[in-house]
Amino acid sequence: MSDVKIAEKLQKLIDELGIGLVSTDINNFVDGGVCASKGWKANGVHCGLAHKALTDTEEKSQAANNALPTNKKNDLAMIMSDKRAAAAAVYTTNKVKGAPLTVTKENLTDGYAQGVIVNSVNANTCNADGIEKAKKMGELAAKAMGISPSDMVIASTGVIGQVLPIEPIEKGIPGLYAGLSYTGNDEAVKAIMTTDTKPKEIAVEFEIGGKTCHIGGMLKGSGMIHPNMATTLTFITSDVAITPEMVKKALCENVQITLNCVSVDGDMSTNDMCVVMANGMAENAEITEENDDYGIFCEALWTVMVNLARMMARDGEGATKLIECNVKGAESFETAKIAAKSVIMSSLFKAAMFGEDANCGRIMCALGYANADYDVNKIDIDIASTGGYLNVCKQGSLLDFDEALAKKILVETDITIIIDLNQGDNGAMAWGCDLTYDYVKINGDYRS
Amino acid sequence: MSDVKIAEKLQKLIDELGIGLVSTDINNFVDGGVCASKGWKANGVHCGLAHKALTDTEEKSQAANNALPTNKKNDLAMIMSDKRAAAAAVYTTNKVKGAPLTVTKENLTDGYAQGVIVNSVNANTCNADGIEKAKKMGELAAKAMGISPSDMVIASTGVIGQVLPIEPIEKGIPGLYAGLSYTGNDEAVKAIMTTDTKPKEIAVEFEIGGKTCHIGGMLKGSGMIHPNMATTLTFITSDVAITPEMVKKALCENVQITLNCVSVDGDMSTNDMCVVMANGMAENAEITEENDDYGIFCEALWTVMVNLARMMARDGEGATKLIECNVKGAESFETAKIAAKSVIMSSLFKAAMFGEDANCGRIMCALGYANADYDVNKIDIDIASTGGYLNVCKQGSLLDFDEALAKKILVETDITIIIDLNQGDNGAMAWGCDLTYDYVKINGDYRS
Repeated sequence: MSDVKIAEKLQKLIDELGIGLVSTDINNFVDGGVCASKGWKANGVHCGLAHKALTDTEEKSQAANNALPTNKKNDLAMIMSDKRAAAAAVYTTNKVKGAPLTVTKENLTDGYAQGVIVNSVNANTCNADGIEKAKKMGELAAKAMGISPSDMVIASTGVIGQVLPIEPIEKGIPGLYAGLSYTGNDEAVKAIMTTDTKPKEIAVEFEIGGKTCHIGGMLKGSGMIHPNMATTLTFITSDVAITPEMVKKALCENVQITLNCVSVDGDMSTNDMCVVMANGMAENAEITEENDDYGIFCEALWTVMVNLARMMARDGEGATKLIECNVKGAESFETAKIAAKSVIMSSLFKAAMFGEDANCGRIMCALGYANADYDVNKIDIDIASTGGYLNVCKQGSLLDFDEALAKKILVETDITIIIDLNQGDNGAMAWGCDLTYDYVKINGDYRS
Repeated sequence: MSDVKIAEKLQKLIDELGIGLVSTDINNFVDGGVCASKGWKANGVHCGLAHKALTDTEEKSQAANNALPTNKKNDLAMIMSDKRAAAAAVYTTNKVKGAPLTVTKENLTDGYAQGVIVNSVNANTCNADGIEKAKKMGELAAKAMGISPSDMVIASTGVIGQVLPIEPIEKGIPGLYAGLSYTGNDEAVKAIMTTDTKPKEIAVEFEIGGKTCHIGGMLKGSGMIHPNMATTLTFITSDVAITPEMVKKALCENVQITLNCVSVDGDMSTNDMCVVMANGMAENAEITEENDDYGIFCEALWTVMVNLARMMARDGEGATKLIECNVKGAESFETAKIAAKSVIMSSLFKAAMFGEDANCGRIMCALGYANADYDVNKIDIDIASTGGYLNVCKQGSLLDFDEALAKKILVETDITIIIDLNQGDNGAMAWGCDLTYDYVKINGDYRS
């Protein structure tokens, strides 16, 4: 995507100043999440995954109790298309990779997928038998769906380094499959949540060549969020007819300016994956090159991804505020992105945002240690929200600003930091959240 | 310093397993901090610096009250040598630099210094008149001391981006100078503290060619700690006779394996500086090359710096635990250092340490995203403290370890993480602390 196009999109975001959903002219928001697209079913169940494999005694005791607890959160989800779908995915660049990613990557080499099986609670990472278990999970799901195991996307999220018990999954799959429905998005979304406080899903409707098309997505992610080339688990479905190559291209372009610009805590997950699957059931003329139709598809995909990215930042572990950092006036998109991410990642800045304290020296400090070259003496900084707009730094020197207005701005839940480097025509945006007592609380004892 | 020498030093640290002070055979610890070295005086006073310049009314009101509050923390310190001292310093690599650093750097171009003036409360950074104020501060101090302004080291620490009021400093200097004493270390240390909960100082005594020599240091730092090429404010004095070139060499070697291996919050300060000054009053034969005497000086300097580094990590903002990460079996020192720092910087790992939760998947996750190449499937991990020793990961797979023992280890205040990459002969050590509610509290409203 050209810098000009990115700049246009940024402007739209700035105009909306962090409120509600972000959109472009071509899209209408619709209900249904991953099931909004034609021919896509989903479901989620509680199959009873624990952080550790049960001992024999525990298993017998559970069997004696004779039923899965029904009041517990869903932990296993399935998504299925009526037809094979052109599919592409991006994965974490962490050297430590969840076993499911290795299997999924292999399955997607032919550019097609038809089903997704995903569990929460256990990440199936750093386990000696991880690959074996991930394959088994895919085979069990494929068998129920009556499709080839090589058409499965397999994902896991949860605690790292504890053996994945396959039994609850095996027992859960028949019911999970039987309950698949064209309105099953909500049950599926619940199943992928870990420390998320809210389900995250969105869908848009648009037209390509007179045909009504859809893209819908769900995402999980709240902590260990610092995507690079991918992000936490994201599943996006579509009914657009498009080749695997063009799906891949659209995904790679959009992930750079959406999900990869979010950081909650600087910790890049081992299990990140974002997959886009398009089954062609909208019956548009198949997109095979970078034409106008591709442009529409890209725009719709961006809308889905940027909104999921913002939902993720807003629901960062313990977060009370969404922090949106818009860097402009940069020599390149890359420079702007590095600067914007440096600000939203600074623990000191994040803690100050929680305290609603306009400690803007911390913004300058983070811009100073960002790994990119620019003249810090040209930087202007504004802070903004629905509470107001305030210039706090001019040409690298902090101003003696109106503290009462600053407080009025920072008391809001959606805060925008606007940074003009004043040394170029490129910009980028990054999304983060504040650092709170609850982040520490959530992560002080995550495993129990 | 060769990798072999570093490895030897690491072994000494590991043997001591994080308890108390770290030393080598050549040193004896002595009292006196920066005044332990012959010919070095120090003092500290409360001169009444506020986060913001006082308004006329406020100033009049303070004048009416007629005196500086005496119950307030010292905020201005002075250190002075009886003779000019060979001096070298390293500074933050943050592009945003405190004005005092620019002036100090200029003053040290000739390799000599005789006096130090330093204030806390206000960082004198991102101010349009910063350089002017820093020079003024140096001139006022030099005038009182009767030395050349170009022999001054000037430093400031505190809030960024608020104009430094020079009046309290000007009024404070005469009393500060008058009170200089050969036992004044304690008053000076108090003056450089910001959110530090404890003064940090140390001194060692050793022999060079039959002459009794000393190195002593003080350090401030608790938050915004992520040194690169330098660290938060550190002042080290010595009575060793040594050339400026050799002081610089010894400082640069040691800073890489001590202060630069500490991170409290990943935020690199704008005002970092570490300065070493040696006045030659021990009357040893001047060290002019890398001979045995230089080796002794280096070893003594390392002892001072590594202990200051550990004190800093232990007193990280809100910290309840010192986390020491020892990476061995690496292809190079650099790889080991990157891996060790990645672990002690992970917010998720730090929060787990606060919760005394052996969530070792977070160690593997941080090793996975560290920006260095190695095979994660060869990694072994142990955790240790005075509470015990436990192998938690073998060849990249986490083990089903004894949770009760893990708890017994993590309940201690000094925790060591031992990581063997099993793919080389080099090692490095890094120091950090846990992430706590108090870190968020301290930084949510630092300015008020």
